[in-house]
Amino acid sequence: MSEFAAVDVIRAKRDGHVLSDAQIDWVVDAYTKGVVADEQMSALAMAILLRGMTPAEIARWTAAMIASGERLDLSAVTRPTADKHSTGGVGDKITLPLTPLVAACGAAVPQLSGRGLGHTGGTLDKLESIAGWQATISNDAFKRQLQEVGAVICAAGEGLAPADRKLYALRDVTGTVEAIPLIASSIMSKKIAEGTGALVLDVKVGSGAFMKDLATARELASTMVRLGKDSGVNTIALLTDMSTPLGLAVGNAVEVAESVEVLAGGGPADVVELTLALAREMLAAAGIDADPAKALESGAAMDSWRRMIAAQGGDPSAPLPVARENEVVRATADGVVTAVDAYGIGVAAWRLGAGRARKEDPVSYGAGVLLKVKPGDRVRAGDVLLELRTDEQSRIPGARDLAVDAVNVGDVPPTLTPLVLDRIA
Amino acid sequence: MSEFAAVDVIRAKRDGHVLSDAQIDWVVDAYTKGVVADEQMSALAMAILLRGMTPAEIARWTAAMIASGERLDLSAVTRPTADKHSTGGVGDKITLPLTPLVAACGAAVPQLSGRGLGHTGGTLDKLESIAGWQATISNDAFKRQLQEVGAVICAAGEGLAPADRKLYALRDVTGTVEAIPLIASSIMSKKIAEGTGALVLDVKVGSGAFMKDLATARELASTMVRLGKDSGVNTIALLTDMSTPLGLAVGNAVEVAESVEVLAGGGPADVVELTLALAREMLAAAGIDADPAKALESGAAMDSWRRMIAAQGGDPSAPLPVARENEVVRATADGVVTAVDAYGIGVAAWRLGAGRARKEDPVSYGAGVLLKVKPGDRVRAGDVLLELRTDEQSRIPGARDLAVDAVNVGDVPPTLTPLVLDRIA
Repeated sequence: MSEFAAVDVIRAKRDGHVLSDAQIDWVVDAYTKGVVADEQMSALAMAILLRGMTPAEIARWTAAMIASGERLDLSAVTRPTADKHSTGGVGDKITLPLTPLVAACGAAVPQLSGRGLGHTGGTLDKLESIAGWQATISNDAFKRQLQEVGAVICAAGEGLAPADRKLYALRDVTGTVEAIPLIASSIMSKKIAEGTGALVLDVKVGSGAFMKDLATARELASTMVRLGKDSGVNTIALLTDMSTPLGLAVGNAVEVAESVEVLAGGGPADVVELTLALAREMLAAAGIDADPAKALESGAAMDSWRRMIAAQGGDPSAPLPVARENEVVRATADGVVTAVDAYGIGVAAWRLGAGRARKEDPVSYGAGVLLKVKPGDRVRAGDVLLELRTDEQSRIPGARDLAVDAVNVGDVPPTLTPLVLDRIA
Repeated sequence: MSEFAAVDVIRAKRDGHVLSDAQIDWVVDAYTKGVVADEQMSALAMAILLRGMTPAEIARWTAAMIASGERLDLSAVTRPTADKHSTGGVGDKITLPLTPLVAACGAAVPQLSGRGLGHTGGTLDKLESIAGWQATISNDAFKRQLQEVGAVICAAGEGLAPADRKLYALRDVTGTVEAIPLIASSIMSKKIAEGTGALVLDVKVGSGAFMKDLATARELASTMVRLGKDSGVNTIALLTDMSTPLGLAVGNAVEVAESVEVLAGGGPADVVELTLALAREMLAAAGIDADPAKALESGAAMDSWRRMIAAQGGDPSAPLPVARENEVVRATADGVVTAVDAYGIGVAAWRLGAGRARKEDPVSYGAGVLLKVKPGDRVRAGDVLLELRTDEQSRIPGARDLAVDAVNVGDVPPTLTPLVLDRIA
């Protein structure tokens, strides 16, 4: 591999030049090994954020991140593989019902997930509210479960794209998270390294999402779809609304409970709609002709869920943790709910203990927000709008203020936006 | 002082916003104390480089850098104080004759200097080729010498703008040197903290300078003049040509020797011209009505030089170090010298050992390049164009190639540009 001076690579991007393949290979490798220092990579990340990257640069950067670690070989799995990635939203528990549902239809879903940081929850945190369930499993156990159960949700191993792990932590503290080339390569390097054959991206748009506007979300989605396809992963993206929380539960155990309702054939309409939409895309991308709605109705998805949880030591019948304290927020006047702001509800749930401020903090499994209304619902003064749950009474006042501000009641019914805003293939 | 999150300050500049006074005060102070990490400051520096700063932001940033350390009080010095700063060039030994010359005319010159890094030399490295001379003196000795001799060239103390010291080292390795707000605040914070009443800036333009084009140099000069005036320092700037090395000597001891020639009433015309031009500006800015040409002729400037060197332990009569090896480069055809490229000669001298690659490297006092021709000179095949000097024979071939490339001989006499390109007050 060629040797470069880090400062020359930084200057090239700073001055708007296209980085060569050799420069990208070198800088990603040298950063992973500590030859390029954090302060050099953060300056480069800022230059990338402000100057951009060509599709060819993003593809090479992604390949270099994949090459920094191991690549899983799922060729021993006989079922077609299909995975989903969400860019993160409030109340976004879709992975929980979706993974066993798609497995029940004949695919294998290798869902390597993360923990939550900030106002959006983490899939692993949610599942850890189930007694006995273990997020960390060996690569061998991962492949065996994928073959036998068809559904695995577990922590991504340390060996997968270590460059991304290091770079992500750096971006988080240097104001360089919001660079589309870096977001796209971060997500896609892990998904490509994980070895899935098909991938459906759920790119969230709105107040509760990372991407606040449709144009930016569309750019990110297109970039990722292209990266996936160029690496032989059949990738499509749905842009979905995240101005309102998904479903009625925001937290950890409360989201597991809502997911189980969906698997039982019930649950909030929006969660069911998005779960089915993503399942159909995953199955189509994997080349499987099956109707996921039937797998929900028949109980096959629930069976798959129970096997998936049990395979990682969890007891699917165990009661879920319940928070010690709760308080309701009521409507102060008659009217119609015009908005339930996803960001405000997400931060309220986080303040109640459902999320963590630093990655070493614990989460409270029972904490969160339960919505009793959604936009368009009519309410009367005194009706319960939402319920706050926490293990610490002292967390209620701050969260309550946020939650009160997040629910707007007015006179004019809102125009409801569709959940799926666009599809990029 | 307010508390901010570093990432919010970085994001604000990244997104093109104007930083508040409180944000600037906090981030400079927190960086100096290590609360803001190097990787955060480098990302901010890159955002500043690409997004720019308003004059008010630059002024506040400069003030914050000054506030990070001590500020010298020169009120006990009864002479008017005047200093000069050059942005650095090849063969730029002007500080050496200029400081004692201006002192001989009645001013006090508090010249806090640095060492060379890269292709431009450092004033302290040059003076250290004089036997016994000490760059580091106490603040008290500095003030005493300033009052008694009127001329001090010494190392800037650790206490002066420590934020700048830390930030400069960071910028050097992160591709963020070339940000005008950061260059201007770096230079001016030290000059304002040093306590001078008047300041003349020599902003170099051309291949051997940091600023390659006149427009950028003018922007930097205007920014610095404004910063100085706003802080009560009577500041003016000359933009001067640095496409050709200044004088005929490029190195350390060889530049001292050339400076002594100028003080003795001789020396190359361009060195004399620029020394006098800067001296006139410094004296005018300090309110002193004197003709520096007379102080050169009378020997007063030379006397001042000898006192200045002796005051810091140097022996002005000691022979200067001479390099062990030398080699000449000759013209291969008849013609006229069309260009002597400052950058090429600077790098050649650096390769010969006159400069250092890393700040902990030693320099060779005798090494350097002696020019025998300047642009416009007619030469015949076999005439000596320049002489290379080094302590290590192995350094000659690489330097020779650079030096050969730097001197162009052609048929058409070049149009000679004036040395002083513009004046900004």
